[in-house]
Order: sequence, then structure tokens, then C-alpha cells
Amino acid sequence: MEAKLKAILSEITAPDKNIYRDAIERANQLIKPQGSLGRLEQYYALLSSIQKNLAPSADERALLIFSGDHGVFEENVAVCPQNITIVQTNNFVRGLTGACAIAKQAGAKVYPVDVGINGDINIEGVFNRKVAYGTNNLSKTAAMTREQAVAAVMVGIDMVKYALDEGHYNILATGEMGICNTTPSAAILAAFTGLPAEEVTGMGANLDAERVKHKIEVVRRALQINQVDVSDPIDVLAKLGGYEIAAMAGAFIGAAYYKTAIVVDGFIATISAIIATKLSANVKEYLIASHRSEEKGAKIATELLGLNPPLDLNLRLGEGSGALLMFNILDAACFMGKEMITFAEQGIDII
Amino acid sequence: MEAKLKAILSEITAPDKNIYRDAIERANQLIKPQGSLGRLEQYYALLSSIQKNLAPSADERALLIFSGDHGVFEENVAVCPQNITIVQTNNFVRGLTGACAIAKQAGAKVYPVDVGINGDINIEGVFNRKVAYGTNNLSKTAAMTREQAVAAVMVGIDMVKYALDEGHYNILATGEMGICNTTPSAAILAAFTGLPAEEVTGMGANLDAERVKHKIEVVRRALQINQVDVSDPIDVLAKLGGYEIAAMAGAFIGAAYYKTAIVVDGFIATISAIIATKLSANVKEYLIASHRSEEKGAKIATELLGLNPPLDLNLRLGEGSGALLMFNILDAACFMGKEMITFAEQGIDII
Repeated sequence: MEAKLKAILSEITAPDKNIYRDAIERANQLIKPQGSLGRLEQYYALLSSIQKNLAPSADERALLIFSGDHGVFEENVAVCPQNITIVQTNNFVRGLTGACAIAKQAGAKVYPVDVGINGDINIEGVFNRKVAYGTNNLSKTAAMTREQAVAAVMVGIDMVKYALDEGHYNILATGEMGICNTTPSAAILAAFTGLPAEEVTGMGANLDAERVKHKIEVVRRALQINQVDVSDPIDVLAKLGGYEIAAMAGAFIGAAYYKTAIVVDGFIATISAIIATKLSANVKEYLIASHRSEEKGAKIATELLGLNPPLDLNLRLGEGSGALLMFNILDAACFMGKEMITFAEQGIDII
Repeated sequence: MEAKLKAILSEITAPDKNIYRDAIERANQLIKPQGSLGRLEQYYALLSSIQKNLAPSADERALLIFSGDHGVFEENVAVCPQNITIVQTNNFVRGLTGACAIAKQAGAKVYPVDVGINGDINIEGVFNRKVAYGTNNLSKTAAMTREQAVAAVMVGIDMVKYALDEGHYNILATGEMGICNTTPSAAILAAFTGLPAEEVTGMGANLDAERVKHKIEVVRRALQINQVDVSDPIDVLAKLGGYEIAAMAGAFIGAAYYKTAIVVDGFIATISAIIATKLSANVKEYLIASHRSEEKGAKIATELLGLNPPLDLNLRLGEGSGALLMFNILDAACFMGKEMITFAEQGIDII
């Protein structure tokens, strides 16, 4: 299966730079001071180049949410019971969670995917792509085998294909549900940056200061036990990651492979995006950052990824909730390209 | 007319603090880690308190755009001809400008208002509330008389009433069109902060460095000539402001008076909001900041107003373009309040 993944990675190409340039040129001719719509002009050009069309759209929208559990839960690094992962995954189908509320506002279809929940889903509407019943405890052993990690990445790629075939979306986002998944995320970030655990490990879902200290110790042990090879992103992902983290990396890879822009959510999604871009640098050209997560480590992760999220809303929910807020902004950038007239059409010189 | 304005100002009350508290309490019970939806929870509580309803909405939307010209244009402080004000005001009706494109995406009705254009509008759809054919040159004399400034503020208040009567909007925004109106805005900001002109005067619509220097000199002269009384916001507005700046201040006052939340756009709108809140401190409770404008001085103006804009998109167009981008985000906050279930409804304890 890793051979198949490698084949996909090798076929990912960057969006068309000529169309990007043409789109910027068009934005410069629109009836406004040049550059005055700032990043909306860049989003317009990016979506133009990805969609190969100077009148792109961001109105057909989907969110892929991947759920997985974590063996490291037994180290007491979360405030809530592990079964919240399954409870909330069921609620994704029922439309009752934070991301679902925002998805409804944005008119986005939600695809909940069980890629590694520690339990069985018995509700219609969750995609059963379970690789295992949760990871191993990364503070004692590798979280996943290499094969399991690759299988979960492939789930993400396949779900993008499935969604695009079903909905012909022009914009995607991905999010996650997995109790205590800020712990593996912090471990991965520490591995890639070489930073000490305390600089990248945060409160997750409202852990108090004392328990954050313990969580830092758990991350430290995970790094010591696992001795990852940072030049091999799959090794890092397998030993320190999780099924939903791997599947989101797959979703980013899949979006690039199937030439669709995809919005990155907060801390955990950014970790997945880092893995995806380390597997193929071209993936980055299909990613759009959304919000500056409140979780400690998010700023460092964002800098490592090299994207600048425009929304500063103190979010730290996950589920793709912050990524969804970009859909209408991206669509506004598309409307700029489609609705405004040029100076020439107005019969006056460019300002 | 100033007596009428004073009567309105004295009747503006803050939104219901009990409902705000109830809304935060409800947000805390929703099935997510407490506080994890960050500022969306605050927007939800604010809109709840303003609308006196724990299921508020931000789906009926309007943008009021006020247009005015400036005598200081003759000092060569703009890159484009003055008639762009009238050209773009016509284009607001035709739906062809940046703000119109974004308004269309957001489903917001646009109300273009001539409050002080230096010319006559001959197109159906622009509200003719002209107070004068542009201001005087503030670097030589007072931009407006006190009576003119108050009349323009009243236009803003009246337009809010008109729009609300027509459309029953639950969310408003206001913007402006007025060639060279960053010059009076910088002068007002310098007056209120006591900062030197060079710290608050920027490139406006792509002025080059040499001409920015000249613009700084013009702002300095304006402050010297006019000797405003900073304890009297109407005096500052009249001597250094403009008709559209006054009308936007009126729109903020009107929104507070008619108990409707209103989104503040970039630099110039923030200056208007400062004047409005200096006239009545309660107005601030109805304002929602939108974006961090690229214009020099915007950051200082935002800090003076005391609001923290969540969008960082390098915008500097005006017209209300950035404010419009908040409508869907605010509506997402409303959906959070309406669509999510509580922990109790799920039958589990609060995380």
C-alpha cells in the first residue's frame, strides 16, 4: 500500500502558475486601488489556478471529519471520557456539534469518517473506514505500525475522491474528533522542530496547569521511547500520530491529487498538513489556512507549515469548525473576480 | 438640529446585561469544551443581548454606504480624480464595486447615500441626502460648519431608521466612498490621540512615499489652522471631518438607538466609530469590529476605539468591503446557539 501512496505523491503537481499570474493581472484591473482587496486577491488567484478558470467558485462545500482514539488516553491526559469521540461522531450525523452548526450556516455537507474509534459506530451516515480500534499508547510504544499509518492516509485520500465524485465540490475542509489528540500532535511537532515538549504542549480541552505538566512529561516519554526518523514523515506519523491525524494528512494529499483547494483547521489539522507537505511539497499549493488556534503550539505549527491564517477568533474546538468559516470568505474572493468591472470597462485609466 | 441629536444620544442605552450573561451560560452548556468556540461565543452573547433573544440571527443584512467629497482634494493628496467618488457611487447601484461583489456573496442589500458628493447623482437608487457639494479644504479652514456636521450625522441616523423600516435587518454594516478621505481621518486621529501627523498618515489608495510626506504636511497644517476642542467631538468632526465620516458616525449612533448590531469597516469607519462612541459611550456596545486595515493609523484607531478586529486580510478598500465579511461569521455564531445541543440534552456531564 505504501507503493500506491508513493505513486500518488509522485503525481501531485502544483497549480498552473500562468493562470495564477493572469488572475492577479485581472485583479489589478478591477475598479479599486491595486492590491486594496489584499488577501482576497490572492485567494481569487489561487482558486483560479487550481480550478483553471478565471471565474472560480467556492460555493460547493464539504467537510471531511475523521475520528480516531488514542492509547495514550490511559495516561490521563484528557479531561473527558474517551467515549466522547464516539458520542460526537454520532452527533456529526445528527448535526448537533459545533462544526455541524457552522457547516449548516455555510451550506457545507459533512462527511463523518470512523478511521480509528475505540468502539463500534451503529448509526447510519458515518463512513466505516476503521483501520483499528484506536492507537497504542505512544508513551510506551509506537502508536501505529507503518502499515496502519499508511492505511489511514489512504482512507483520507479515498474519502476525498468519494466526496468529489458525489458532490463535485469546489472547496473542501477537513477536521477531526479524537479525545486527547493534542498529545500526539504536540509530540509530532516536538519531533519536527526539535523544541522541548513544554513549548509545544498545551491545555487541549481545558486541562488544568498541573495536568498540562503531566501531559508534557507524557510527550517527553513518547519522544524518548520512539526515537523517530524525522527525515521519514511516515515514521513520525506512525510512531507518534493517530488514525485521524493520518487520515487528515491523506485528505490534504487527496485534495492536491484531485486538484481541489482544501482549508486547514487548527492545531491538529496543521500537524497533519505538515506531514502531508513533507510527503509532497506541492500539496502546500492547495492548502488555505483558516484560524489562529488558541492551543499552545498552534503558532509554531503554523510557522512550520508556512501559512498565515487570517482569522483570529480564539477557537480551539477542532472538528473543522474554524476551517468552515473560510468558505464564505473564499467565495467573496470569487465574487470579486466575477462581479466587479475593470477600469477599462468603466472607460477610465487604472488608479 | 443639534438638540435633536442630543436627545437621541441621551436615550441610547446598553444592551441587556442579563441576557448577555444567560447567553454565555448557554454557550457554556453546549456540547464542546467550555470557551472553545472563543469569540463566536461572545458574538452569540452580544447578538442575544441586543436582540433580546437567546436564538439571535444575523441573516438579514444591509450595508449603508455614504459618499462625500473633500475640499482638501485640491492639495493633491489623492492618486485618482475626484469624480471617482461619483463614478463609484453610481456603480454601487449597478453592483459593480468591491463592496457590491462581497455584498452579493453575503446576500446583503446595499444602500448608497449621497451625503456630500461634489456633483449631482443622476441615477435611480442612490439616496439623495446631500448636505453640501463637498467639504471645504481643511488645511485652510474648517471642513464643515457645526450645523453641517450635525446634519450629516442625522442623515446617518435617519438612513438606519429607513433601512430597518424597509428590511427588518438583524445586522448592519456601514462603509464610505470619498476620494482622499484618509486625509481628514488621519487629522481626526491625530487630534484625538495627540500623535504627530506622520504616525497616523498613510498611503491611502496607493500614494507614493514622496506624496505621503506632502500629505503629512497637509494634515499638520489642518491641525494648526483648526485648533479643535477635543472635548467636543462635534467640533473635531466639523473642522477636520467629512460628510461621509459624519454620516457613518450617525449610522453607528442610529444602530445603537434602534438596537441593532452594526459592523465597523476599516480605517475611516473606525474614525467615525470613535466619534460616535465619544458622543455616547453606550454606542460601543452595538459595534462589532471586522478587519485590521492595512492603512497606516488603522491599528492606532482600533486601539483608541477599544475593539479587536478578528480578520487579518490586508484590506484597504473601504466601501464597507471588510465589514461585510463578518456577516457570515456572526451568523455562524448564531447557528452555534441554535443548532448545537447541550451536555444535559446528550445526557452527560459538562466537560
